[in-house]
Amino acid sequence: MHLFYQPGVDSQFLTEDDSRHAIKTLRLSIGDEIAVTDGHGNRHLAVITVANARRCEFRILATQTTQPRPFSIRICVAPTKNIDRIEWFVEKAVEIGIERISFFFGQHSERRILKLERLEKIAVSAMKQSLQSFLPILDNALPFEKLLTSVGEEQRFIAHLPDHDPPVNVAKKATLGGRYVVLIGPEGDFSEKEIDQAVGADFQMVTLGPNRLRTETAALTACQILNFINT
Amino acid sequence: MHLFYQPGVDSQFLTEDDSRHAIKTLRLSIGDEIAVTDGHGNRHLAVITVANARRCEFRILATQTTQPRPFSIRICVAPTKNIDRIEWFVEKAVEIGIERISFFFGQHSERRILKLERLEKIAVSAMKQSLQSFLPILDNALPFEKLLTSVGEEQRFIAHLPDHDPPVNVAKKATLGGRYVVLIGPEGDFSEKEIDQAVGADFQMVTLGPNRLRTETAALTACQILNFINT
Repeated sequence: MHLFYQPGVDSQFLTEDDSRHAIKTLRLSIGDEIAVTDGHGNRHLAVITVANARRCEFRILATQTTQPRPFSIRICVAPTKNIDRIEWFVEKAVEIGIERISFFFGQHSERRILKLERLEKIAVSAMKQSLQSFLPILDNALPFEKLLTSVGEEQRFIAHLPDHDPPVNVAKKATLGGRYVVLIGPEGDFSEKEIDQAVGADFQMVTLGPNRLRTETAALTACQILNFINT
Repeated sequence: MHLFYQPGVDSQFLTEDDSRHAIKTLRLSIGDEIAVTDGHGNRHLAVITVANARRCEFRILATQTTQPRPFSIRICVAPTKNIDRIEWFVEKAVEIGIERISFFFGQHSERRILKLERLEKIAVSAMKQSLQSFLPILDNALPFEKLLTSVGEEQRFIAHLPDHDPPVNVAKKATLGGRYVVLIGPEGDFSEKEIDQAVGADFQMVTLGPNRLRTETAALTACQILNFINT
């Protein structure tokens, strides 16, 4: 069954995009059953009552509520120079499972502008495509220092090779069922100052594997590992 | 130091692409040191002797030989309708670590043509970018049945939800240090016949996590999990 997204709790109609998709593209009509998620864990089985391509209305027949996962993953990443790479990361992270994606501009960031709108659309379609009922939070980019102060998660990691100590994979430091946050630096990596600030804010330095990874690959790998150890 | 790729064992000159990159883009000149990998585990420290933008020659100063990993990962995947998705998979899989990527056309494959040349270039640049000394093998697409007969790896998995038995994650079936091969179906999934053929060829049905994943996401996730359990 086709899955649509309507964040409005009591709004029994599809967004304009989804209405067009349902009526024009999928040619659904009155009486057809659809699935609608609110992105907050509720998934409705619904029936189309008004087959309008601008405002397709539906009546909810049943609602299935999913509980949030017993762990949460937040990845904070510096936008890449080539925005396609971040778009890929957002799509893939949402598919495999993530609660929150935050962006930041570091001292070595080449990109200083980030538009969330397109990324939010990618997140919504990835949520639908992977049949999930939760839409991850996407946060606007903050300067690195401001980002650090926004972190409430208790299991804090920064993907950075320590100078002295032997590198430890994030899986070895993470304890199961926690609230994780991982910082992934820009192509130019974190500055010394940023590393110190993160360590000062109780972030532990971890690696994500033996190879040198691109920013978006590191971000996705951190997400994969934290998902995997909790499954 | 800049890493270049010269598969020829005794060829102490860069390819035309790499020569142009070294001399025109990076403006390297005689006496500059470079790193050159042959893609077979050897990495040379070399010095430029002829700074020709068409044929940059070098002299090897030292060679560092890396042993192959104690395990090997081969992912066999049906090319996606949108080839960007397979290009993304190849880049990411090479970055995180993979020995071989094979392509196949299934009964439900939408795409019936695959050009390897561009994928090979992506693999080479991902190998360089992640500072590795081994270039994974890329195999031309085969019909599914032919692909099955080409498999020599002993740990065989097919990413498919079994009808009766509870799904088991590939990590639970894989034993460490093995030679793995994983089959990832097209957007239209495997046909019943293909599942039977694979099971008949000793492939075990496994899942890659709780969510429904796109073809290229499933392929990368299988690669991530098998890498992770072996690190």
